[in-house]
Parts: sequence; C-alpha cells; structure tokens
Amino acid sequence: MSFRWPVRVYFEDTDAGGIVYYANYFRFLERARTEWLRALGYSQESLRSDDILFVVREVRARYLRPARLDDELTLTVRVESSRKASLVLAQEVLRRNEQGEEECLVQADISIACMNHGGRPQGIPAVILNAMTSSADGQAG
Amino acid sequence: MSFRWPVRVYFEDTDAGGIVYYANYFRFLERARTEWLRALGYSQESLRSDDILFVVREVRARYLRPARLDDELTLTVRVESSRKASLVLAQEVLRRNEQGEEECLVQADISIACMNHGGRPQGIPAVILNAMTSSADGQAG
Amino acid sequence: MSFRWPVRVYFEDTDAGGIVYYANYFRFLERARTEWLRALGYSQESLRSDDILFVVREVRARYLRPARLDDELTLTVRVESSRKASLVLAQEVLRRNEQGEEECLVQADISIACMNHGGRPQGIPAVILNAMTSSADGQAG
Amino acid sequence: MSFRWPVRVYFEDTDAGGIVYYANYFRFLERARTEWLRALGYSQESLRSDDILFVVREVRARYLRPARLDDELTLTVRVESSRKASLVLAQEVLRRNEQGEEECLVQADISIACMNHGGRPQGIPAVILNAMTSSADGQAG
Repeated sequence: MSFRWPVRVYFEDTDAGGIVYYANYFRFLERARTEWLRALGYSQESLRSDDILFVVREVRARYLRPARLDDELTLTVRVESSRKASLVLAQEVLRRNEQGEEECLVQADISIACMNHGGRPQGIPAVILNAMTSSADGQAG
Repeated sequence: MSFRWPVRVYFEDTDAGGIVYYANYFRFLERARTEWLRALGYSQESLRSDDILFVVREVRARYLRPARLDDELTLTVRVESSRKASLVLAQEVLRRNEQGEEECLVQADISIACMNHGGRPQGIPAVILNAMTSSADGQAG
Repeated sequence: MSFRWPVRVYFEDTDAGGIVYYANYFRFLERARTEWLRALGYSQESLRSDDILFVVREVRARYLRPARLDDELTLTVRVESSRKASLVLAQEVLRRNEQGEEECLVQADISIACMNHGGRPQGIPAVILNAMTSSADGQAG
Repeated sequence: MSFRWPVRVYFEDTDAGGIVYYANYFRFLERARTEWLRALGYSQESLRSDDILFVVREVRARYLRPARLDDELTLTVRVESSRKASLVLAQEVLRRNEQGEEECLVQADISIACMNHGGRPQGIPAVILNAMTSSADGQAG
C-alpha cells in the first residue's frame, strides 16, 4: 500500500533511443514525492515557512523495462524506513500491460534528510512523520 | 474558447532565478497540444500509423509574468489559422491570481506543418482539421 | 561576424523522433549567450553584484533542419538592435555539412530587457553595451 | 586515474533551490561517459553500426555538496569492475575549492549492460573492454 500518482510520457521525456531518458525518471519520482506531501497537507511553500527542507542525500534506481512515448505510468511512494532526521522512500514506476497487470519498470530508493535553511540537520516533526507513515499504511493503491 | 490543460510547476521546471526556466514553457505547450490531439481522438501512435507527422516549423513566445514553484497553470490551445498543409496555433499559459481572475503569463504562436514520414508536406486530413477547428469553437474554457 | 560557441548533441537533448527536442535549442541558445557575456567579462555572478539582470522578454525561432545525436553544432550571438533598456539578439544554430559548408538549422531572435533585482527597467550600462556591440563587429566567426 | 571531462553549470541545470537539480547530474554523468567512449574511438554512431548497445541497468548516486550556477565541474569515469557482458563505472562530480583542492560533490556507480539491438545480452568486444580498462589505468587526471 503506497501513495500513487499518474504520469503521462511526452516527447520531452524520451530520447533518440525511443524510450524515456534514464535521468528523467528522477523527475517523475520527485513529482510523486511532491504530490504525496501535498496530499498529506504539506506544500513546498508551507514546509519552507516552517523552516523545513527535505534534501535528497542518495538515490538508487534499477531499470527493469523501458517506458515509451504516450505510456501512462503510475508512480508510487512508500516509507521504507525512518530515523530521527532522515528517511528512506521506496518508489516504483509501474505500467499496466496488455493483460491488465501492473509491471514494475523502475525500482528506486531515495534517501532524504531533514534540515533547516541554515543547512543543519533537524528532526522530522512528529506530525509530519506520522502522516507519512500512516499514509503508507492506509492509502490503498 | 479553446482547449485547456492543467500543468503543475515542480522543481524540475524552475531555475536558480526562482522561476520557470524560459525553455520549459515549450514543454508545457507541447503537453497541451498532445492532450488536445488525444482529446480529439488522435494519439501520437494513431497519427504515426496513418503516416501523419505534425512538425513544429516556427515558434514565438512573449513572456509577460513569471510562473513559480507549486503554481497551478492552465495551458490553452486554439487554431489561429490553417492552410492546406500547415496551421498556426495560439497558445497561452494562464494562472489565476488572488482575485480569482486568470492572468496570462506567456503568449505563444506555434506554426505546425503536416508531413509524411518521408518528410514530404501533405495536406492535413479534412477529418482532423474539422475536429481541430470545431474544438476551438465548441469547447468552453 | 558574431560570437561563436560549440555545442555537442547528447542523448539528453534528443527525443523519440530521433532529433533534438524543439525546446532544447533554447537551452543551447542560452549557453551561448552566457558564454558571450563571460567572454566580454561579465559572469552571471558579476552582473548580479552590479544589480543588473538580463531578462528574456520574447523569443522567436524558425526550425529549418533538425540536429541529431552526436552532431557538433555552432551557436552564434549577434546584437541585432539595441535601445536604452533592451536589445534584440540574432542567434543561429549552425552545422557543417559533408561539403564543409555551414548550414543554418535554427534561426532565433531573442528580445532581452535589462532590469534591477526589484524588477524595474534600467538602462544597459554603456560599458556593457559597447562591449556587446563591438564584439559583434570585431570577433570573427 | 580516470577520464576527465569539464562541464559548466548553466541556468538550465539549476532549480529554484539555487543549486543543480538532482536529476541533472545524471545528464552530466552521461556526457562524460559519451566523451570517454569517443576518446577511446567509439562514437554512438560507430557502436550502433557494430550492433552494440550500452544500456544503463542500475544507478546509484550520493549527493555530498551542491553545485551552483556558473560552477566549473569536472566529471570523471573509471571502470570499477567488469564481467563478460556488463561493467560498473565509478563516476564523480568534482569542483575545485578556493584552496585549489578538488572536492567531490557527487559519487556515482553506474551499471551498464552490453546488448545487441534485438535486446539480447552480448559480450563486450575485447578490443573495447581493453581500451576502457587501459584508459582507466593510463590517462592521468
């Protein structure tokens, strides 16, 4: 069970190999993270005014199958693990095949640190972490 | 009266000036054109199998106000003029201000030529041109 | 006679049509403008500390021939016209053909306004305008 | 000892946070890989005509320090390990600090598979693998 967000593949996302350019999946992944936070009640704007900054520390992605022009993808977000001032998100890029089953195209782990705007680590506020974790439990795909 | 398509501004779209990077509006404009064609019944896939290629020949854009992170934009598409094998689309990037009125951020004219995959000009099929033109008349904003 | 800057085409610049994506030429054009200013002695950093901001007001581009993966392009910059607080730059995307002649792939006119960081129009400092104009005269292609 | 390639940071690479957008480092990394292959005598064109395709299977990146507008970066490529039909490249994004020392901004491992255009794994030709491996030994930074 994870947050889900639809993404359509346009020409801008593809390359001369006829498939989505490998770096562009990271744009899709961030759209989903942004919309996940927004669905939990936290826009980039509101986080900024609370002096909270989520910063990507490390990414890992496995490319299993290529996405193509016009594809309708589903991006997922799920809290894999969390610590005081950081968390790891498991994200996937999914596409429904001709049998109607969802296939995973890309699997990613995104390590995020929580900081203030001075660049100092700070604990993730409990209310946000709770929202993140219960969304991962409660929001059906 | 024109076709309308919503676009959200993410980090990927912005630059260090804090606003949407000037080239990226053209990505938004093409998403809207692609969805306009899809709404009329023509995916990139179906056009390709009919050996029809719409190619951008010339673009012009006036930047009136900047878009920013998290903005909800509306992209529009309207047939400005058409000839046998080409047409000009008028497109706008709109944003609602705090009074609830839509403001125009970017005005664009996009000249499109119709070709086959051999690169030869070919007339826009009447059924497509009709759909394009009546959509411009009939689909309320 | 105009400033010239080389650009190589990578996968990131292309799309599923096998050619450079139409919006990405505007990235190339800005790289050339930035390097032109740097060659004249003005980095983005130094302009900022002088409270000078060059803002794109209007762009126009004609796409004559497509660029492809691995192409070596030359970008040009030339002052087309100037006024107190704005100027128009003529830019081209060139590629050498098999006969060794330069062909123009894209022709662009870029209208730039000079402002301070408060967003007010301000005159282009004479020393900068002089440098821009004499570079256009003096720097061989 | 590794292959080195310079990259300048432009507005297009940055985001509203004032730093290089996290996905865009992967564009830089691929430019360096492409130029590394070209320096070894293998353009994308020549590989294609030999029915050899290098495909990214997995990426991992650690973001240590942010790059900013106007930064001059050095991208590196080094063969970390190789097998019959795949290899792992260690890549870094470096920047010289005010003391003239190179600091690492991003560390990446890129897993590449060698395939033909039918999508079948195939052994990396010995002549290419030799060139790749000796470049890693012989080309001083």
